[in-house]
Amino acid sequence: MGRMSSRPEPDTPVKRRRGRRSGGVDTRAGLLDAARAEFAERGFDGATVRRIAERAGVDPAMVNHWFGTKEKLFTASMDMPLDPLAIRAEVLAGGPDGVGERVVRGFLTVWDAAAGGGAMAALLRSVTTHDFAARMLREFVTRVILRPVADRVAPDRHAERGALVASQLIGIGMMRYVVRLEPMASASREELVTAIAPTVQRYLTGNLGSTKPDS
Amino acid sequence: MGRMSSRPEPDTPVKRRRGRRSGGVDTRAGLLDAARAEFAERGFDGATVRRIAERAGVDPAMVNHWFGTKEKLFTASMDMPLDPLAIRAEVLAGGPDGVGERVVRGFLTVWDAAAGGGAMAALLRSVTTHDFAARMLREFVTRVILRPVADRVAPDRHAERGALVASQLIGIGMMRYVVRLEPMASASREELVTAIAPTVQRYLTGNLGSTKPDS
Repeated sequence: MGRMSSRPEPDTPVKRRRGRRSGGVDTRAGLLDAARAEFAERGFDGATVRRIAERAGVDPAMVNHWFGTKEKLFTASMDMPLDPLAIRAEVLAGGPDGVGERVVRGFLTVWDAAAGGGAMAALLRSVTTHDFAARMLREFVTRVILRPVADRVAPDRHAERGALVASQLIGIGMMRYVVRLEPMASASREELVTAIAPTVQRYLTGNLGSTKPDS
Repeated sequence: MGRMSSRPEPDTPVKRRRGRRSGGVDTRAGLLDAARAEFAERGFDGATVRRIAERAGVDPAMVNHWFGTKEKLFTASMDMPLDPLAIRAEVLAGGPDGVGERVVRGFLTVWDAAAGGGAMAALLRSVTTHDFAARMLREFVTRVILRPVADRVAPDRHAERGALVASQLIGIGMMRYVVRLEPMASASREELVTAIAPTVQRYLTGNLGSTKPDS
């Protein structure tokens, strides 16, 4: 897994001071809060680094310093257990052949590792109870993961293919980590990869039928 | 859609009396509350009609009178927008050929009709926030829908096939009704049937790969 080289790790425990953003940990936490609010209100495209810095009461250069890019700030504000940009890079590295398998394995690797799916359960909980979390997830899934992947490996109908993949992955998340339906809850990762990869492969590169012949 | 012939419709508006179950609407509502508690605590298999009646403070014959069977009481206690037993009958009526298409169309027909997916959103919200709701859904999906369908149309590995189908359907529910990811949120039912039916067909009747050769 990659790491975000432009994000220094805080070397002291988190300490918040009220009413003042002095730098370091305070600045980073403040930027994450501001980013969540801004992304939730305006979505990924509408949000600007300048306005996020303004909300946090810091200089826009701090965004660059702590997070590098708007996309990385967005990813960090989703509080993902592993770096999804690294997963994406891995998925894209291999081209269309076997992409279904890489997507499913990448997804399960991230979430199985994150508190045995506890982080996924928490995410889905907040998505179903808060509109802003649903919007964040929608933006995240679309912008950061699905569109880049579909653009690279799918022949056409990118948004549709991306949404189909998302539906299958989020469904695994619900069944494996929240509803805990057996045998999916305790199946091995490779059992699930074997069963589900062909679905994701078809959604990304296969024939979806001719009802909606857009491109 | 079928109807539950053994469940008389109350002919007066719901009127609850505190502290007393006198019959009619009160009995039915009391049985539903008791059933939810009992199913949540013991699951479908562990729950007994006798204990549900006891919890509600009525004679077990009342369960038969109002709901017919434990399965129908269970279905009613899930508060589904349409009768899932009727959907199940429809899915099973056609045998293995085209079962994927019938399952997806049946699922979307139920939920699109129910407050434009609002009922599905509410169900998923309670499933992600309450363990007992997750357990109820798990039992419901397994006992009432998936196992009977898989038993009838699937060649082997029934539980695994059922869980895979559930993951794809619940994923559509999340993406179409909760996260509202486009173009899935506003796609027509037939567009989705065309795209997703082959997935469900393969999960139910196709080759799932050989990682787990149980039967």
